[in-house]
Parts: sequence; C-alpha cells; structure tokens
Amino acid sequence: MSTQQFGIVAKKECNFHDWYTQVILRGELLDYYDIRGCFIMRPASMFIWSQIRSMFESHIQKMGVQECYFPMLVSKKNLELEKNHLENFNPELAWITKCGEKDLEEPVAIRPTSETIIYPAFSKWLGSYRELPLKLNQWCSVLRWEVKSTLPFIRGREFLWQEGHTAYHKKNDAENEAMEILNLYSKVYEELLAVPVVKGKKSKKETFGGAEYTLSVEAFISGTGKGVQAATSHHLGQNFSKMFNISVDDEGDRQDRMFVYQNCWGLTTRSIGIAIMIHSDNRGFVCPPRVSQIQAVVVLCGIKANTTQEEKTRLNNYALDVLEKIKKSNIRVHFDDRDNISPGYKFNHWELRGVPLRIEIGFKDMEKGEACIVRRDNLSKMQYKVANIVDSLQESIDTMHKDMFSKALQEREKRTKIATDFETMLGHLNDKNIVLAPWCSSAQCEDEIGERTTVRENGEVTLMGAKSLCIPFEAAVDYKGMCCISCSSDAQCCALFGRSY
Amino acid sequence: MSTQQFGIVAKKECNFHDWYTQVILRGELLDYYDIRGCFIMRPASMFIWSQIRSMFESHIQKMGVQECYFPMLVSKKNLELEKNHLENFNPELAWITKCGEKDLEEPVAIRPTSETIIYPAFSKWLGSYRELPLKLNQWCSVLRWEVKSTLPFIRGREFLWQEGHTAYHKKNDAENEAMEILNLYSKVYEELLAVPVVKGKKSKKETFGGAEYTLSVEAFISGTGKGVQAATSHHLGQNFSKMFNISVDDEGDRQDRMFVYQNCWGLTTRSIGIAIMIHSDNRGFVCPPRVSQIQAVVVLCGIKANTTQEEKTRLNNYALDVLEKIKKSNIRVHFDDRDNISPGYKFNHWELRGVPLRIEIGFKDMEKGEACIVRRDNLSKMQYKVANIVDSLQESIDTMHKDMFSKALQEREKRTKIATDFETMLGHLNDKNIVLAPWCSSAQCEDEIGERTTVRENGEVTLMGAKSLCIPFEAAVDYKGMCCISCSSDAQCCALFGRSY
Repeated sequence: MSTQQFGIVAKKECNFHDWYTQVILRGELLDYYDIRGCFIMRPASMFIWSQIRSMFESHIQKMGVQECYFPMLVSKKNLELEKNHLENFNPELAWITKCGEKDLEEPVAIRPTSETIIYPAFSKWLGSYRELPLKLNQWCSVLRWEVKSTLPFIRGREFLWQEGHTAYHKKNDAENEAMEILNLYSKVYEELLAVPVVKGKKSKKETFGGAEYTLSVEAFISGTGKGVQAATSHHLGQNFSKMFNISVDDEGDRQDRMFVYQNCWGLTTRSIGIAIMIHSDNRGFVCPPRVSQIQAVVVLCGIKANTTQEEKTRLNNYALDVLEKIKKSNIRVHFDDRDNISPGYKFNHWELRGVPLRIEIGFKDMEKGEACIVRRDNLSKMQYKVANIVDSLQESIDTMHKDMFSKALQEREKRTKIATDFETMLGHLNDKNIVLAPWCSSAQCEDEIGERTTVRENGEVTLMGAKSLCIPFEAAVDYKGMCCISCSSDAQCCALFGRSY
Repeated sequence: MSTQQFGIVAKKECNFHDWYTQVILRGELLDYYDIRGCFIMRPASMFIWSQIRSMFESHIQKMGVQECYFPMLVSKKNLELEKNHLENFNPELAWITKCGEKDLEEPVAIRPTSETIIYPAFSKWLGSYRELPLKLNQWCSVLRWEVKSTLPFIRGREFLWQEGHTAYHKKNDAENEAMEILNLYSKVYEELLAVPVVKGKKSKKETFGGAEYTLSVEAFISGTGKGVQAATSHHLGQNFSKMFNISVDDEGDRQDRMFVYQNCWGLTTRSIGIAIMIHSDNRGFVCPPRVSQIQAVVVLCGIKANTTQEEKTRLNNYALDVLEKIKKSNIRVHFDDRDNISPGYKFNHWELRGVPLRIEIGFKDMEKGEACIVRRDNLSKMQYKVANIVDSLQESIDTMHKDMFSKALQEREKRTKIATDFETMLGHLNDKNIVLAPWCSSAQCEDEIGERTTVRENGEVTLMGAKSLCIPFEAAVDYKGMCCISCSSDAQCCALFGRSY
C-alpha cells in the first residue's frame, strides 16, 4: 500500500520538517530517489514549474533573450579560468572519470552552473559592438554535490533552473537589465506563487563568485523563522569578460578592443519548495491557484444507498453540464467521478494535493441551478449560480491568490523586527524572526555575526548562525550616523539578517 | 574574424560532409565545443526544437500524458536489472567516480535513457489497476559516450530529447498508444519539418534492448543515399514490468497481481539535423518555414548615394507600416535595418541562415503599394499588394512547406528501389539508393547482409554495410512465396534496406 493514501499526521507548528516531508510526499509533489539529494519531480510540481517557465519565457522573449542549449560537461581548463568562481564551486563538482570500461584521459565535470561553458563561446562569437547586446537563456538541470544536508526542492544535488547570460556594450544597460530581471523574479513569486519577496543587494560575503554585485529576492518561511534566497541576478561587470577574453571592436574611432559588460541570472525549482512551505497547512498542500494543474475539482454529494439510478443519472448529467461550461474557459477542471469511494474520501484526497477549489454538487444545488464552491486555503463555502460559474471561479481564483499573498505578507511583516543593538537582534532571531539592523557590511563582521548567533549545546551546533539575507532596497531603518549592530564601527547600510536555508 | 561572415564553399553534391558542417556552423545553428561529441545549440536551432516541443507537448497533453522530471543519475544496481537493456547501453555509460576531492563509495552513471531510473518509481507508486494508465513524459538531455564518429545533431554524446514512459492495464491499449505516438512523430516530421518519413517496425536485431517490438519512422538523406532513424516508439510488453516488479491488483475477483504493459518512446534533436540535411542547398540552410525563428525578413532596396534623406525616410516609413501589419499576425518577421551594409550582403546573410521569405521593398514597390517576396527554397520572386501582405505571406509559407515536402518525397521515391536478388540490391545500394526486398527477417541474416554489403579497400572499410531500416507498414513488394534477398530461405516480410546514420 502506497504512502499517498494517508493524510498529514505531523503538525506544521510542532514539527516543521516532518510536516513538510509529508506534504510533498503524500501530496504527490515529489518522491525520493535511491541516490541521496536527488529527487523525482512528479507531475503536480512539474506543472508548477512549467507555469513559471512559460510566464518567465514570454517576458524574456519580449526583452530579446533567445533560448539556447550548451553542453552539460565542462573541462578542467575552462573551470580554472575564473579563480573566485572556481573556489565557490570546486568542492561540489561531480567528475566523470570513466566511460564504458575506459578511463578518460582528462576527467570532465558536470556543470554546477554554465559561465565557464558559455563564455568561451561568447569570446569566439563576438566581433563588433554592433553584435551587442547578446542575450541567451537556457532551461536545464545542474549538479552540485552538496555535502550540507539536502532538502527536497530547497537544496538538492541536481535541480532544474533557467540561467540567463547576457553581454552588453554599455555598463549602464547591463545594470538596468540586471534590475529588470530582478523585478521579473519578484513578479513570478508575487503574481504566480502568491509569495511576497524582499528585493535587495547581497553583502560582499554573499556575492556570487566572480560577480561585481549580486541582486536577490528573498522570501520568509514563517514556520521556521528562516529566510530563503529566492532568485539572484548578478552583474558581472568585466570580471568574466577579462578572464575569458570577451571583447569587441568599440564604436567610433577608438582602435582598442573593449571588454563587454555581463550579467547572469537564475531561478530554480527551489521556488516550488518556498511556495509549499509558506502556503500549506495541516491538511496538506495548498497550491497557489494560478499555477495549479487542477484548479477546480467537481465532486458529487448526497448520493445514498436508496438513491435511484435515475436520480444519479440526473445529478451526473447536471455535473457534466457544469463541467462543459468550465472546460470552455481557461480554468483547469477535473471531475472526480470515481464510484468506489465516498465524497469525504475525495475531499481529503484533493485537499492533501492542494487543489484550490472544490465544486460540490448535490441534489439541492441541482434544483436551484447552483453549485457550492469550497476554497482550499480557508475552507470557506459559497453558493454560486451555475449560469455564471466561470466568472465565479475566476473571481475565487483571484481572491484566493490575493488572500494567500496578503496572509504571507502580514506574517512576514509581523516577524520582521528592527534592532539597533546586538542582544535585541539575537533575541528576535531566537524567537524566529528576521531582523533589520544598521550594519558596517564587511565580510569579517558578517563572519562574526554568524559565530555570535550560533547556538551550541555540549559543543554541538543546535541552531546555525544568522547571516545577512540582503541589503533591502527599501530599508525601514535610517542607518546614517548609527553604529554597526555587531562591530560598532560606522554603519554603511541597513541589512536584513536571519537564519536561512 | 568569425566564421559566420563567409558563405558556403563546399558543394552538397560533391562533398556532403564539409557542406553540412559549413551549413550548420556558418548558418549559426550550432557550434563545436571543446569536448568532442558535445555541441552548442544556438538560438536558431533551439527555436526549431522549441517549436517541435510545443506541438508535441500539446498533443500528448490531450492524450493525458503528464510532464515530470527524474534525476539524471542512475545507480549500478538499477542499471543491472534488465540484462538486454544493460548490454545495449553499458559500453556508452559515463561514470561519476569523484565529487569535489572525494572518491564516491559507489560510482553513479549519467542517464543514457531513463527506463532504469523511472521504473522503480512505477513499481513503488502503482497499487491498483484503477491507477492505470500512468503516462509520463520528460524533456531532458541524455549522455551516451559514443565511440563511433559523432556528427552534429545526428549523433552526439549529449543530446536533447523527450522520453515518454507509460503503463497500461491492457496490452491492446498499450499497443494502440505506441502506434498513436508513431503517427504523432510522423506528423512532427511531415507537418513541421516538411520531411517525409516511412513508418514501420524494426527488425529483431534493431529492436530496443528489452522491448517486445520497436516501431520507427525513417527518413532518407538523398545527399548520401543513407537512411536515418527519425524517432522510435517501443512496446515493452511485460519485459520491464517483470524485472522491476511493476504490478497492480487486477480487476474483478482475481486474487493475483498482474504485471503492467508498458511503452516508451523518444524523439531527439537529431530531427533538426535531418531537416537541415534534406532541405539545405549550396547557399546554406533552408529552414522549413513553419519552424523558422524568423519567417520573413524585410530588406530595403534601391537606396543609392544620391538618394535624398527625405526619400530614405519615406521608404523606411513605408517598410515600418508593412512591418506593423505583419507583426499583428502570427508571422515572425524581422526588419534588417542595418545601415552599414548593402542589400546584397543582407540577402546572403539571411539566405545562409535559411530564413524562408525575404520581403524586398524598393521605391517602385512603394509607389505601387506593393512588396516583392522571394522564397528561400527556389528563389522565386512574386509581387504582392501590401494591403493583403499577411495573407500572401501565410500562403507563401504554406506553399513553400508543401513544395519542400513534395520535393523531398519525390527524391526519396525516385531513390527507393525494389530488388528480389542480392546482386541487384547491392548495385542499388552502391548507387546511393535504399532498397525494398523480400526478407527472412532473422538477426543472423541481417548480420550477413551487413557483411556482404560492406566495401573494403586494402582491408579498410570504405563503405559501411547496409542494414534493415524498417519493415514498412505499407510495403510495395508482395513477399509471399518469395525467397529471402540474402539467405534464400522463405521470405517473412518486405524490408527496407539501406546504409544509414
């Protein structure tokens, strides 16, 4: 007997980790695999990814970004060209050393990201500033042999993502694009997944290896009080273009070649895990309604042992009419017409799987030309006329989306504290909050904050240290003239600190 | 200076291999990479793949197939479960043995295909016949460390594909699906790529390891006289379900578990190579018009040194009006408004890249409210009224598609010969034909045919042996009562033989 036949038994508020595992396994979103840190994306989660992909792809196409595909293998030689970059990824590289029965002369690595694969081609292709900007994106999987604990969707050894790589003639244009992409990531989270995010810049320590700076959107998981990096957009400046010799003939009379300005940016299937963690409850998954594979499920109610075949047929035909109406719209509807299980079992089945709307149809509904719509997020029930069922469903989807977003936003705001001294910050962090504080922004100070917020019992780490999630663009604290929250030197910014995934 | 600035210098009819390489490199469809057998898919070819993906995906969705994603890594233990299957893929497996600085306890392989990754999950998930059919598909890349010579698109170490994996309660339903998918593959080739294919069944020797039988579509490359396998749909029977213990509670009173009936089916980026080889000419790529990233390119003509700025502006505005009209339709149009190069250079540029239609706009066209449309495949020119330009372009696209298909079909028919004795067959093969012949269909006889058709000079193979491409569903030869083309035992079928990729 398979696990999916049982509901969620762990509580979100008591044992978050077990609860999360049950939600994704029993909600049939994901399954484990016999290689640790690798996970199977089942259709329900893959559908969410395909919705994200389709929205993101249509936007970047309008920006002139073109789809491409580069090999998954990378040679040692190219990996070694950018030292900071190599340092970041080296410990996680998976190496192919043998093919069939033969040892390879030179081992090759699987891509952990594709800068070192793509930029030699940029170098080869680009001749003149007239060929800029060059904007490419690919959808693929990458492999990072994480030694830290893996967590489905959130941290896997292999995961799906998109990686965009662009090259510009002018630094300013590149920087504008990096910001435009960040806004697009925010849109994906807020408008598709109903997840509020904080936009900001990463600290020096958290900047991508080889980048000039890194922008990110950060989400908050209230169940654990942790922040989570939701997507990143890196402005590389000329760091990579100098290492990979990506230069063009410059405009005008200048004889010199110029090195291009570059960005890269990525969004991963972690986004799905974030949405699951934020929205789901003790009944199981609550799917953001715009991305759900099934948005509404029809269930017949009130059929009893003494219901005649004729009555059953009438009710069934009524439901089929409702179904036909809905199918003519863009709403994704499913009729659960299984005759070997009860309505109650069906309710549990679809609640566990997060289907946003349930359409209950009983004899009384039929007599009145109505249907009862039950929302997954708050279990509220409303009667609607079948004549306007499509509008009612569309409205329910939009309202549910807004309500889910507002709830998550309120929760985050409630749990975002301000501190100006270290002890206050530590208290807030230990109460599962994230904290805005004035900061000197140095890497050394960030290390120290990590150390000072680590909780140990008998020498074992029981609560990991905090770090800066980002330096938000919209900061609540005016840091000017204030002291750093930890080292007491002059504050350079207001940072958002938190424990994190 | 980059290679794409030069046209094609090799001739398709003289040196097919060099010609093909120049078409794909200089047409900016693909680039080489510093690991042999791995290729970069540039936007122009990736666009074709995205069109194929979108058509195929929408069809299989209607069939109830759901998208999923399984890990790219596979353990030795699972690989070894199906012996025939392992035997096929073992010599080509790439093994990861080291991660970061550490050796793995147990090496893992990169998927060459995913049966051994997916079927353990089928075994775990399926409980009752009521959960059937289960229909999954994934889009991903696979890795096969080919030792044979690699060829861009046609035979790469890594390539993109879709792989469908389905499980059924009834053998008959599974077999119908295998055929439905074969018809869909045929549709992709014929309706998108303008490539005619032969549908048939593979011989025993050519059947997929572990399958009960393999269906395929086969294309013909007239430039080399070779056949090429274009896509395959395998009915696995219960072979894999028995090895992986994929069983369900059967319907009715029967107490026994039953093993499910399975199919798997795949289409790869080889399809793009096939289309390129068939349609392109000595000017470069000829893109099938329905899948081209740019379907029509606008080029201004007749601007001379003494043309006034006012005249230039008028012509440019006229072109922009035409462009706006077209952009309101679904036709993908591009305005080449570069002012630093001549119309002639632009013509060559877009011909090399295979753009199906060129819209030339000069002063005379403007005065008459017309534009001149030039077809890439036959360079024919036609004047059209701008008022109906969208209809004219759509018609040109459809006509060009049909003409390209017909030309390829006629070529294949002309080069498909019938033989009833071996010497005749050999003559036809050596004249770059494919041959229909009565056949006993045994694996041993197929080996012998391969041997007897291999051409050697001084012990070196100069022309590889022929094999059966497929046993076509629609056979031209009534084989009953005839002798096998090679071994003279009773013929069991009419097979299509050819040298092949």
